[in-house]
Amino acid sequence: MAEERTQVVIVGAGPAGMLLSHLLAADGVDSVVVETRSEEYVAARIRAGILEQSSVDLLTEVGLGDRLNRDADKHRGIYLQWPEERHHLDFVDLVGRAVYVYGQTEVQKDLIDARRAAGQIVHYEVNDTALHDIESDRPSVSFTDSEGRARTIVADAIVGCDGSFGPSRAAIPARESWDRTYPYSWFGILADVAPSTDELIYAWHPDGFALHSMRSESVSRFYLQVPNGTDPATWSDDQIWDALAARLGHGQNGWTLQPGQITDRSVLPMRSHVSTPMRHGRLFLAGDAAHIVPPTGAKGLNLAIADVALLAPALTALLKGDQRLADGYSETALRRVWRCTHFSWWMTTMLHTAEDPFDTQLQLSQLRWVTSSEHAAAGLAENYAGLPIGF
Amino acid sequence: MAEERTQVVIVGAGPAGMLLSHLLAADGVDSVVVETRSEEYVAARIRAGILEQSSVDLLTEVGLGDRLNRDADKHRGIYLQWPEERHHLDFVDLVGRAVYVYGQTEVQKDLIDARRAAGQIVHYEVNDTALHDIESDRPSVSFTDSEGRARTIVADAIVGCDGSFGPSRAAIPARESWDRTYPYSWFGILADVAPSTDELIYAWHPDGFALHSMRSESVSRFYLQVPNGTDPATWSDDQIWDALAARLGHGQNGWTLQPGQITDRSVLPMRSHVSTPMRHGRLFLAGDAAHIVPPTGAKGLNLAIADVALLAPALTALLKGDQRLADGYSETALRRVWRCTHFSWWMTTMLHTAEDPFDTQLQLSQLRWVTSSEHAAAGLAENYAGLPIGF
Repeated sequence: MAEERTQVVIVGAGPAGMLLSHLLAADGVDSVVVETRSEEYVAARIRAGILEQSSVDLLTEVGLGDRLNRDADKHRGIYLQWPEERHHLDFVDLVGRAVYVYGQTEVQKDLIDARRAAGQIVHYEVNDTALHDIESDRPSVSFTDSEGRARTIVADAIVGCDGSFGPSRAAIPARESWDRTYPYSWFGILADVAPSTDELIYAWHPDGFALHSMRSESVSRFYLQVPNGTDPATWSDDQIWDALAARLGHGQNGWTLQPGQITDRSVLPMRSHVSTPMRHGRLFLAGDAAHIVPPTGAKGLNLAIADVALLAPALTALLKGDQRLADGYSETALRRVWRCTHFSWWMTTMLHTAEDPFDTQLQLSQLRWVTSSEHAAAGLAENYAGLPIGF
Repeated sequence: MAEERTQVVIVGAGPAGMLLSHLLAADGVDSVVVETRSEEYVAARIRAGILEQSSVDLLTEVGLGDRLNRDADKHRGIYLQWPEERHHLDFVDLVGRAVYVYGQTEVQKDLIDARRAAGQIVHYEVNDTALHDIESDRPSVSFTDSEGRARTIVADAIVGCDGSFGPSRAAIPARESWDRTYPYSWFGILADVAPSTDELIYAWHPDGFALHSMRSESVSRFYLQVPNGTDPATWSDDQIWDALAARLGHGQNGWTLQPGQITDRSVLPMRSHVSTPMRHGRLFLAGDAAHIVPPTGAKGLNLAIADVALLAPALTALLKGDQRLADGYSETALRRVWRCTHFSWWMTTMLHTAEDPFDTQLQLSQLRWVTSSEHAAAGLAENYAGLPIGF
């Protein structure tokens, strides 16, 4: 078995792992990335679509902003609506920060291109990834590479960016976790049609929540609240468009929903999960490996970016013998994680149809408050547009 | 049976009913108040202790402010705390409004004195109160007076200020109601000791919520979260002071809790309730007859004051033939009712120990947000210090 050496082994080549390798390289720290999936799979999987101001600022600062700044669609805010009422929250007016529509697939492409140009070593399609000696200062990651060769990479630190199902989280002993499942899922629909709105519409409706999002000038993204276990194949196109029209308020106050060719449909369960600590010995967790948020607040990708933005300088300092930032990483990161976990839970429970009629009235009361009180609106805005990195 | 006549019969001589009679009299509208309890009982019962700025403004404006403005203790805000951390929210800085510590017993005394001086007819200790013909423009209230005489008073309108258990709410047909019970109660303690704090302390603690309030310079009021069904007699004085000291953080950062002679103890269940509509024909509901909030947000008395502040001009206009305000009363009042119902629910669920560990983390995350974000703090402040009357 060949034993190799690097400074940091990063498990997972999604946006968290690839951005971390980029940030570490900028600090002169070498890393190797290992990933069980293929590059094509990682590059193509459809995920989040909203970047916070601070995510855009960070990506731009580290040289990843060329396409982003050209192609991202800047949104001043969102629409919040319930039957007969649609309100715009202008985040720029409220808190001075905007959000940007730029798919995770695009971020991933920018990262892959930049890391390839820089000669980053990424092992795709590996198997049997295992973490070793994380309590020592010579931790290692073993795996079988895409050519069937058993390899071991020894490093100064390992970072788990391998999501909910990867081996990194499980390698942390005596961890504590918090979970919330929700009694509904999101039915996601991609359609070849220009968006019927300039900014996202979050719609509360007695039939269930709906979200009108977008991917580009010619591709719209929609979500419908559906019961858990819904098979997307059982909905006809007409049923989908009828449900979207009803929930999004087609025909109300002159607004119309333009239907189009549906090109993708999938059902996403909703879940909140936090696992602590985010560091044990020389193993650090970032992104989905440590926490999952339901997509309602558009926090998942941004939280992963914030994690690695904290982690890169902590690792750089650790490798120079200064442990302070590394020692504080878990606690510092978790402050933001819990803020975003609360916000995502709050947006989710405010907008999705509830069983209990009292909860329904609480939802409507909150929606009225958030759209009529500047303080409440700014509270939503500062969370949605994102806290400064390092909060 | 003697049939008498007035313009408005008010059922219930608590603060809502008595203030309404006062406001109507100022508009030249005659009323008669009927009450099942004795004047002594109504005057002595211990209830809320916090007045919003707008409640104080209204009471002052209608000539009820003499003692209030002399004796009420103006508080700029509250303390929010959890173990090791205490934060002050300054409502005056945040939203330009204060709150006032002035017991409901004092408000009641001011109202009784003012109405007696004005010759207001109040029938105390009545029995068998019944409402009749509320869909006609000659509704009436029948009752047996304290001397055993059957009486009927015919009026232009009836207002039910008779709380949860009075006959008024039940007289509204086809009403809808929303309820939430909570899995805990408040153990209320009155003690002859100077408050150990200048403003209220709301304390989250793993053992359960605690509140340090006060009645005067020499009387403190405390509340402890306890399981439903707790018998207050089963707690020794030492147990009470130990629990208060632990939950309120005696000894932390130099703060000490001064114990004293306990003079009253009682257990209050926590409940949210809203009944709609608040008007049917010539019957109008105000205060607890239409809605109950848990005491955490100090909204109950203020909401009753806001109801009758809306209702008095609506009734005055109705008697002059203009129905518009009366027709809008239920909807207008319910906007504020649901805002306060949501706020009270939110304060309650944020501060009381939860069963689910995920909820516990949401609570702490919210407490940190509310005490670190100016927007979040102002959102709490605008609700606690109170919306303008007529919101």
